[in-house]
Amino acid sequence: VTNSTDARAIGIFDSGLGGLTVARAVRDAFPGESLCYLGDTARVPYGTKSATTVTAYAREDIAFLLRHGVKAVIAACNTVSAAALPGLADDYDVPVIGVVEKGADAALARDEGQADGHPRKIGVIGTETTVGSEAYVRAIARRSPEAQVLQKACPLFVPLIEEGWLDHAVTREVVREYLTPMRADGIDTLILGCTHYPLIAPLLADFFGPGVRIVDSARVMAIALERAFRKGVILPAPTGGEARINYFVTDRYHRFRDLATAFMGGDCIDVQLVASDELVAGSVAW
Amino acid sequence: VTNSTDARAIGIFDSGLGGLTVARAVRDAFPGESLCYLGDTARVPYGTKSATTVTAYAREDIAFLLRHGVKAVIAACNTVSAAALPGLADDYDVPVIGVVEKGADAALARDEGQADGHPRKIGVIGTETTVGSEAYVRAIARRSPEAQVLQKACPLFVPLIEEGWLDHAVTREVVREYLTPMRADGIDTLILGCTHYPLIAPLLADFFGPGVRIVDSARVMAIALERAFRKGVILPAPTGGEARINYFVTDRYHRFRDLATAFMGGDCIDVQLVASDELVAGSVAW
Repeated sequence: VTNSTDARAIGIFDSGLGGLTVARAVRDAFPGESLCYLGDTARVPYGTKSATTVTAYAREDIAFLLRHGVKAVIAACNTVSAAALPGLADDYDVPVIGVVEKGADAALARDEGQADGHPRKIGVIGTETTVGSEAYVRAIARRSPEAQVLQKACPLFVPLIEEGWLDHAVTREVVREYLTPMRADGIDTLILGCTHYPLIAPLLADFFGPGVRIVDSARVMAIALERAFRKGVILPAPTGGEARINYFVTDRYHRFRDLATAFMGGDCIDVQLVASDELVAGSVAW
Repeated sequence: VTNSTDARAIGIFDSGLGGLTVARAVRDAFPGESLCYLGDTARVPYGTKSATTVTAYAREDIAFLLRHGVKAVIAACNTVSAAALPGLADDYDVPVIGVVEKGADAALARDEGQADGHPRKIGVIGTETTVGSEAYVRAIARRSPEAQVLQKACPLFVPLIEEGWLDHAVTREVVREYLTPMRADGIDTLILGCTHYPLIAPLLADFFGPGVRIVDSARVMAIALERAFRKGVILPAPTGGEARINYFVTDRYHRFRDLATAFMGGDCIDVQLVASDELVAGSVAW
């Protein structure tokens, strides 16, 4: 524990818009911290791409944030956390925090009053690459070998959410199609393994009913950050400083700005467009 | 008209798998031609990205095919044709053929026995970027100012097709949701402005009924190529030569190989993985 402070921003990156759910949770929990957000909208989505490609993209995203002088990097994207970390995390001088390990912690935590000793049954939903990586399965098994994990890739959720069909009959039908077997198996906890999914959390809660606890990456990441501050892994911003949020995107500037303004609130959203060539070129030694 | 021949391959590129519908139509129409196919699966989809980004990607894709010595380039991707051509096409020594202009020709052609003089009403469906570009609207207006064009972006079709839900209740419901107004307006022709859409053509034909003629890019491109051979714009391969098809993808090698094998038939599918860095680096003068 230290009394020092660090005025540098916390970096957050995602394949696109979804990481705003994490950014909002972090901002609400730590309003004094400056944030630097990168959405790689020119190459979105990551969740349908291979671990090799996702790792290459993640390296470029992290290098971009480091060039902007961040004190820590949050990989908001579950696909990056699952497929590229922790192999990547050791390569940098600043902490690089993924959501999978913290999500496993949160999923295994028992609510107060919850019966102990009962073997846990945890559902994990995410992109094809996240589910294919089995990262959540391994992270949960390391902590609780007797826990049962049921996974299901839900590739249509992101396009449906991007279409804005958050409470649409089609989205309900797709939920039913994907998740009826998981519901029949009787899970006690559902990990939303994609930053987009909190936007359909009400619909998922309806489908699974009150007996299933939902763990979302945004809240998990705010808790992980609180812990990193407490342990001195990241130093907090000096009190009374001015907290700024800078947004960078690689494409679709206007769409991102409109959605970020609506989602983050306020009227002072500062978004800059980064050429995707710049992202690629900057991270490779030519 | 010339009697010369040219043994070089015809290049075809697309953001991913969808262009295989074009490749198959070209191979079936011209079995003596070698083909060189590039699917940019590391950056798929193009249809949700800006014209600027799509143009940059298209330049890299074309440069890659030219490094492989093709005699012509087919932009199978409607988004590229709509957003990046014809601005791009003049920059190259070989013909670069897009699908929009040829699609407009095909849509306006009258079937034998069709009543003349009646103003045409043409529906166009495609990605957000294709529809937003209004390229089909302009191409049709240049040929037939009195024709009426109704457009609708259908961003969920590609993910539904990629999910394999080609004849699924959810896909039918999404078709109904997107296209009921277009059907109510009484179009006579529907342009499938995306290379994925032929895979749900039966479902769209069901929905619109027998009175609506469907124009798909694959057939349109085979006809355009026939015309280019006839006019000597492209020289045909020498007869009796060995026709080869080489496939290149920037990601998801196995998935592409399996699908291409199933879709193209035969057991000799030659797919190579190209690092996406190579694609980017090769086309830019550093």
